[in-house]
Amino acid sequence: MGFVARVTSESSAEFVPIPQRIATFDNDGTLWSEQPIYFQFEFVLDRVKALAAQHPEWKTQEPFEAVLEGDLKGVVASGEQGLTDLLMATHAGMSTDEFSSSVADWLSTAQHPRFKEPYTDLVFKPMLELLSYLRQNQFEIYIVSGGTVDFMRAFAEKVYGIPPEHVIGTTFALQFQRGPDGKPVLMREPKIDFLDDGPAKPVAIQRVIGRRPILAFGNSDGDQQMLEWTAAGDGVRFMGLVHHTDAEREWAYDRESRIGHLDKALDEATERKWVIVDMKQDWKVIYP
Amino acid sequence: MGFVARVTSESSAEFVPIPQRIATFDNDGTLWSEQPIYFQFEFVLDRVKALAAQHPEWKTQEPFEAVLEGDLKGVVASGEQGLTDLLMATHAGMSTDEFSSSVADWLSTAQHPRFKEPYTDLVFKPMLELLSYLRQNQFEIYIVSGGTVDFMRAFAEKVYGIPPEHVIGTTFALQFQRGPDGKPVLMREPKIDFLDDGPAKPVAIQRVIGRRPILAFGNSDGDQQMLEWTAAGDGVRFMGLVHHTDAEREWAYDRESRIGHLDKALDEATERKWVIVDMKQDWKVIYP
Repeated sequence: MGFVARVTSESSAEFVPIPQRIATFDNDGTLWSEQPIYFQFEFVLDRVKALAAQHPEWKTQEPFEAVLEGDLKGVVASGEQGLTDLLMATHAGMSTDEFSSSVADWLSTAQHPRFKEPYTDLVFKPMLELLSYLRQNQFEIYIVSGGTVDFMRAFAEKVYGIPPEHVIGTTFALQFQRGPDGKPVLMREPKIDFLDDGPAKPVAIQRVIGRRPILAFGNSDGDQQMLEWTAAGDGVRFMGLVHHTDAEREWAYDRESRIGHLDKALDEATERKWVIVDMKQDWKVIYP
Repeated sequence: MGFVARVTSESSAEFVPIPQRIATFDNDGTLWSEQPIYFQFEFVLDRVKALAAQHPEWKTQEPFEAVLEGDLKGVVASGEQGLTDLLMATHAGMSTDEFSSSVADWLSTAQHPRFKEPYTDLVFKPMLELLSYLRQNQFEIYIVSGGTVDFMRAFAEKVYGIPPEHVIGTTFALQFQRGPDGKPVLMREPKIDFLDDGPAKPVAIQRVIGRRPILAFGNSDGDQQMLEWTAAGDGVRFMGLVHHTDAEREWAYDRESRIGHLDKALDEATERKWVIVDMKQDWKVIYP
């Protein structure tokens, strides 16, 4: 990768000191697949089923009823409020430790509906190789994703080698409480306090990292501002998009898709000559 | 320091793997002084004076009038709303880069009213030595402070060796905008979106780091929950408080002070046998 050679060679005019070698990656659709629905939403559906015994009222209450009856159209018809209700029922009202356990349990047993494999096997091998190559060249790699932080932390270290403190994403409000034994716990409140998508991605990068990336990779319009923010820094920069073009081995979607909607960012990438990975053409192997 | 030997010796039953050696430090009153007023508030006062020429209306508008006349009592009398107005006038309405420059400029010229030295010289030498010792033992050191992130980042790396991505604090809302030249900027909005004090400190630690510290150091009741959160983890832990007891070389204050108020945390530290540094007794040298 010419870019890496240019920024890591000390004799290069474009040399970048190690602490400034910040790379940011979107997760859904960039490091792993995101179809037919975001994997985190598969978790939501499975958790509703798992929790249903404790909530007999869900049998006659939308959108829970639709989930329990496997009626995905009904779920979608419940609209934004319905999706929010499902998210809160599965992501809030428990401690951070309890939530992490529920994600880890799910990941260890759940299977993708099409591939019948664990979700964590549906990561992109060429991207794993890129992460590894960047790491060898002393890049600090961060995830910057619309997924929620604690969901991604349950697998990011094991699957990508990205530690918890390098996972940036959507966050739920947390509340510090002392339990009956006096021990403090952090409870997840039914409220998203930061939605890490689109223009919020550069905001999150500034807030958490405080340095501008020199490399950023995404796959949708939700990554456009992160790529622009990366491109606007001084010196040489690398901006990349994964374009999902392989319906046979993965999925093919872009401008018309609700999930991983890629339209304006594709135009901008083309115009500005950012790297566009054509999955079908460029990747010999997709999954490890 | 016995604690460090216990957690870093591989033959110890209390060995802690390197990635889990997380240490969190409050800043004001823990790593540097905070009297007679928080240094960041000195910056606010100086900035109001520097910006006054562009704001002729401030001459007759409280709390700005009081600042320009050097009437600190008048500033205090303006109450929380007055302090908020001053904060917003000096911390918002500019880009992140412009704000960072204004802090750097101030730090390079401003002097502390009592010691007539740059504020960054009023850091605690024994704490710098502790940071250095922890770093030698592969601890990852974070600041977790009520000060605002971008203010602290302007000096934390140079003065403490703590890089921008390890500075956690109060944050202003940021807005992604495209400038007239199409280049993106992050504008600081007149709104605090996270106040990193008291029970919010463990929340910030979870949100940004995602691991529980094994060592935490503070100096006020605003650090109590961070210390409790640290103490509540498994295995051996280190909790420390700096107690300001030296009116001659620094300041002496605790239960009655508005700044660095130390009351409940002092009781808890005493009861639970956390380390309490008695500045007068324990520190041969205070400033480098």
